Amino acid sequence: MALKPTTPKGTRDFSPVEMAKRNYIFNTIRDVYHLYGFQQIETPAMEMLSTLMGKYGDEGDKLLFKIQNSGDYFWGLTDDELLSRNSAKLVSKFCEKGLRYDLTVPFARYVVMHRNEITFPFKRYQIQPVWRADRPQKGRYREFYQCDADVVGSDSLLNEVELVQIIDTVFGRFDVRVCIKINNRKILSGIVEIIGETNKIIDIILAIDKLDKIGLENVNKELVDKGINSESIAKLQPIIKLSGTNTEKLSILKKELATSEVGLKGVGECEFILSMLGNFDLKNEVELDLTPFQFVFADDGYKGNIFIIGVTHLFVGFAYN
Amino acid sequence: MALKPTTPKGTRDFSPVEMAKRNYIFNTIRDVYHLYGFQQIETPAMEMLSTLMGKYGDEGDKLLFKIQNSGDYFWGLTDDELLSRNSAKLVSKFCEKGLRYDLTVPFARYVVMHRNEITFPFKRYQIQPVWRADRPQKGRYREFYQCDADVVGSDSLLNEVELVQIIDTVFGRFDVRVCIKINNRKILSGIVEIIGETNKIIDIILAIDKLDKIGLENVNKELVDKGINSESIAKLQPIIKLSGTNTEKLSILKKELATSEVGLKGVGECEFILSMLGNFDLKNEVELDLTPFQFVFADDGYKGNIFIIGVTHLFVGFAYN
Repeated sequence: MALKPTTPKGTRDFSPVEMAKRNYIFNTIRDVYHLYGFQQIETPAMEMLSTLMGKYGDEGDKLLFKIQNSGDYFWGLTDDELLSRNSAKLVSKFCEKGLRYDLTVPFARYVVMHRNEITFPFKRYQIQPVWRADRPQKGRYREFYQCDADVVGSDSLLNEVELVQIIDTVFGRFDVRVCIKINNRKILSGIVEIIGETNKIIDIILAIDKLDKIGLENVNKELVDKGINSESIAKLQPIIKLSGTNTEKLSILKKELATSEVGLKGVGECEFILSMLGNFDLKNEVELDLTPFQFVFADDGYKGNIFIIGVTHLFVGFAYN
Repeated sequence: MALKPTTPKGTRDFSPVEMAKRNYIFNTIRDVYHLYGFQQIETPAMEMLSTLMGKYGDEGDKLLFKIQNSGDYFWGLTDDELLSRNSAKLVSKFCEKGLRYDLTVPFARYVVMHRNEITFPFKRYQIQPVWRADRPQKGRYREFYQCDADVVGSDSLLNEVELVQIIDTVFGRFDVRVCIKINNRKILSGIVEIIGETNKIIDIILAIDKLDKIGLENVNKELVDKGINSESIAKLQPIIKLSGTNTEKLSILKKELATSEVGLKGVGECEFILSMLGNFDLKNEVELDLTPFQFVFADDGYKGNIFIIGVTHLFVGFAYN
């Protein structure tokens, strides 16, 4: 034992008091998942890098913890390759396994591998740690738990309704009031379509996401700086400024997205979900909110509705293709 | 996703049915641990290699899954070092973290790091996976769970009595009959002392451990082959052939170890534990059994009594220094 032992950067121990609190939280979430018919699975901490790589973008690939091959990991490497010291390129020669970065990609792998044993629709939940070689910031860790519930093999919007009910039930049991924000990828696709600036979508998203911090005027200034034409910026205004009740927002969107088939489909989906949720006595507010955008465009896997809860950006469930 | 996705060698998924069974088993163990006043902690999956290396012998060091440093892991490596292709030596340059190999060393690290927050004696349990880059055999995995209960900060033999009660209660709840075998390191030290063959102890252990398979005659032949002198072999006979009730075994050991202070102390400890256990209505048999030896000598950390259960070689608790 070294004189001053420590845990790796961004990881931590859980004391008995912390474990008691965490168990209470996880058991509550687990109970609610069971109540709604979700079944638990577990997947290994390690996955093949071929399963993980390319699923989280270039940045995600860098943030994977990679596990050195056992034995002679220099096998097959030429002198030139070694002396190139190309860390990023050679890592795939040294390592074939990595720690999972999230629970979604392992679940997708699980579904492919076990499709003959699964009865669809398959409602699964998974409560396990994930690892990210992120630069640790205050309150953020390189090892942390995710509590995912997903449905595969069903496109029914009732699944999304149920996921909102689950969120509402969990936080209700914690006696914590949250705002459940729902967004829809089809609406965002519609917006891209009508303003005709598909290739600058990232710039647009990053600018609009600063609305809370820098205000509308500066957002528009940034859009101009990024070379977005004035016509597109004008078309974006009703969407950037989108406010009011959910009904009012939907009505604005219907008008603005009138020429986009996919956009109108997204509005219809949100309308259905919100109307279904109106039948239940939810404890928490549900709000249609097109921001933050970036989560939605980060990964093409997100086809359906997106839920963001409170200010924690906690992701709960979506239909994964 | 690759066309035929797979999990890394020696790892597996847990289906909903398997999870339900495993949760039942873990919850039973957890309940019993709580009943006896043990508190749960969790430690990170990754530990610094400086914490792990050298704790499990050379073989153990090889079986550690090592995590490639992020970024430029070639930093500080000379051309000569790289071209040496010395995997074993260079791994410590490429990697500073590893996956935990067991829960004992992380717990020892936890105790050192948190000693100011802990009230001793500290009774902790930990149910978490461990990873070993072992050659996977039938029914053995590279990722598997351990359920450890340990007491630190108390030398009382009553802790050992309690651990046997815990084992008895757990398997009682499972309605599985087991034989709880107890062994004692001091007895084994005494044996080494009286036969005066300390430097050949590994050879002796490996030979005696074959008793069940090859019989007494062949064990003695192997001892001769290994260069153990006939006087030592003669002294070993009563111990190799040790049989009868626990009381009979203790009485033989007392006689054979009469000249070894440490040996007699070990016999006394076992006598105390067995006598205390006599006060309880245990569901399972408790048997003094000096084999298998190898577990006991594998690690100098094991100071006290050792429990081996059934044929599974399941380790439950010991006083760790």
